[in-house]
Amino acid sequence: MKLLSYQPKRSVGPPRVGFMLGEQVVDLQQAWCYWRRSRHENEWAAAAESFFPSDPSRFYKGGDDIIRQAQEAAAYAETIPVQDICFDRDDVRLLTPVPEPSKIICIGKNYADHAAEMKSDLPDYPVLFAKFANSLIGPEDAIEKSSETNQLDYEVELTAVVGKEASHVKRANARDYIAGYTIGNDISARDLQMRTPEWLQGKTIDRSTPVGPWVVTSDELGDPGNIMVRSSVNKDVRQSSSTDKLIFDVPYLMEFISELITLNPGDLIMTGTPKGVGMGMDPPKFLNDGDIVTMDIENIGTLENKVTDK
Amino acid sequence: MKLLSYQPKRSVGPPRVGFMLGEQVVDLQQAWCYWRRSRHENEWAAAAESFFPSDPSRFYKGGDDIIRQAQEAAAYAETIPVQDICFDRDDVRLLTPVPEPSKIICIGKNYADHAAEMKSDLPDYPVLFAKFANSLIGPEDAIEKSSETNQLDYEVELTAVVGKEASHVKRANARDYIAGYTIGNDISARDLQMRTPEWLQGKTIDRSTPVGPWVVTSDELGDPGNIMVRSSVNKDVRQSSSTDKLIFDVPYLMEFISELITLNPGDLIMTGTPKGVGMGMDPPKFLNDGDIVTMDIENIGTLENKVTDK
Repeated sequence: MKLLSYQPKRSVGPPRVGFMLGEQVVDLQQAWCYWRRSRHENEWAAAAESFFPSDPSRFYKGGDDIIRQAQEAAAYAETIPVQDICFDRDDVRLLTPVPEPSKIICIGKNYADHAAEMKSDLPDYPVLFAKFANSLIGPEDAIEKSSETNQLDYEVELTAVVGKEASHVKRANARDYIAGYTIGNDISARDLQMRTPEWLQGKTIDRSTPVGPWVVTSDELGDPGNIMVRSSVNKDVRQSSSTDKLIFDVPYLMEFISELITLNPGDLIMTGTPKGVGMGMDPPKFLNDGDIVTMDIENIGTLENKVTDK
Repeated sequence: MKLLSYQPKRSVGPPRVGFMLGEQVVDLQQAWCYWRRSRHENEWAAAAESFFPSDPSRFYKGGDDIIRQAQEAAAYAETIPVQDICFDRDDVRLLTPVPEPSKIICIGKNYADHAAEMKSDLPDYPVLFAKFANSLIGPEDAIEKSSETNQLDYEVELTAVVGKEASHVKRANARDYIAGYTIGNDISARDLQMRTPEWLQGKTIDRSTPVGPWVVTSDELGDPGNIMVRSSVNKDVRQSSSTDKLIFDVPYLMEFISELITLNPGDLIMTGTPKGVGMGMDPPKFLNDGDIVTMDIENIGTLENKVTDK
């Protein structure tokens, strides 16, 4: 299923979790209530908020049990009329699916061709760096270009969403700990990233980093180790590769990270980007006000954002 | 005032915010209720949890209004008998004061003598890097030494606690945005920190980073730009300096960071460490199971933790 965060355009309230049913957006908590009632569990449905949060920040904290219930509720919703709990796509605003992960861990130099274009050696170990939630925006938001940077750059990245607490996970079991996958655009202000040895200040600028448009659950994605990733700027294709070229694949990363750092449900792992970033070109091509940046990942979809001066 | 997080040893419940009153620990929400009742605001006291959280994770999110109320409640508590809402120091366990900051931003190479001992140039800009909340432990916890590292090192750091949302803050007003200060021990696994260009994996290991023992509010600390910081290992003094030697002082850091990154109440800024870390010695002296690491910062207190093999 495709898990998303949305607000109805007409009556804007707090963000709620939904899912795609064909071309429509269905409210997930309400679908869950229908499913519970169909099982004569009216007392559960009456206290839905306690058992099955509508708030995306709380939803993922529920771990894999909540994801499983979501899948059952969505499957049930396909069998009944749901007009009263669904919206046409145009009637809602999609938000970033996981707005407050406790960690966003990004992987640097994880494709050999990107390490080469950045004039870097291949890493012996995964290069981990951080973003914070202040940087996240959704599929309908603009990438805000701070006046502090003149070198804003894009990076398409398969992004794993942790599904349950993960500590000392083994590679063979790693997929059990991933709720699903989404698209991340690891926006990087190269001048700020490179002006000190540590990249953080160029990586976690307010409202710079699109993640979305939804989380495709692991069962639906297929093999995360062999899917196409692509980016373009104003329809000019810039990056085109496959996750089979990742130096450290998703199971390896889950084992490596969780050996040191306990991952929580909803944490994001941005797995790195292939060749073709603006900085790697001769001359470099950075992002400017008005540019349209499009990220496509196979079996997930498209994440497209406009750049705007802040 | 000294704001802290505690659990009574006899009846362990969820962590609660408290404060020091002489040598005793007073429950802050209960003191607040007394203060409200003294003003005949019984309806406020009856719904204390809505207005004045007892949970340290929620408390700091309330921003400077909550801190102000805390100060008034604490002042009132000094004028009345509080035996029924206070504990002897030995009857409680102190926890890390801010358990779930949305960001922990650390500053690298912020004392010239430390940059020199690490064979680094002086930075032109503040070097920002991250930790996550998984790394935090309190004043009575052990520093867990992962079996992945053989080079565990200490770093004493004046640590600012953000008091209200801060974006595009000017240096002159920076102190208005700081709730108070605590002691941070920026524990660093040097081998893991240095095995890739980005330091994150050596900096945010589970349960490695002591912060505490409490937050001294800004009004009580005095000038954060001129206080003594010191560390020792097994009573052997290792670091001894003053924050007047910071290359980038706290107001500068607040302006620099908040130009790019919106800070939230409860966020931690670890301001960097002076010369004398284990790695800077010849030969290096790293931390081992059983070592006692003591951090002293003037006007805050002492943070002492034992190292234990994990």
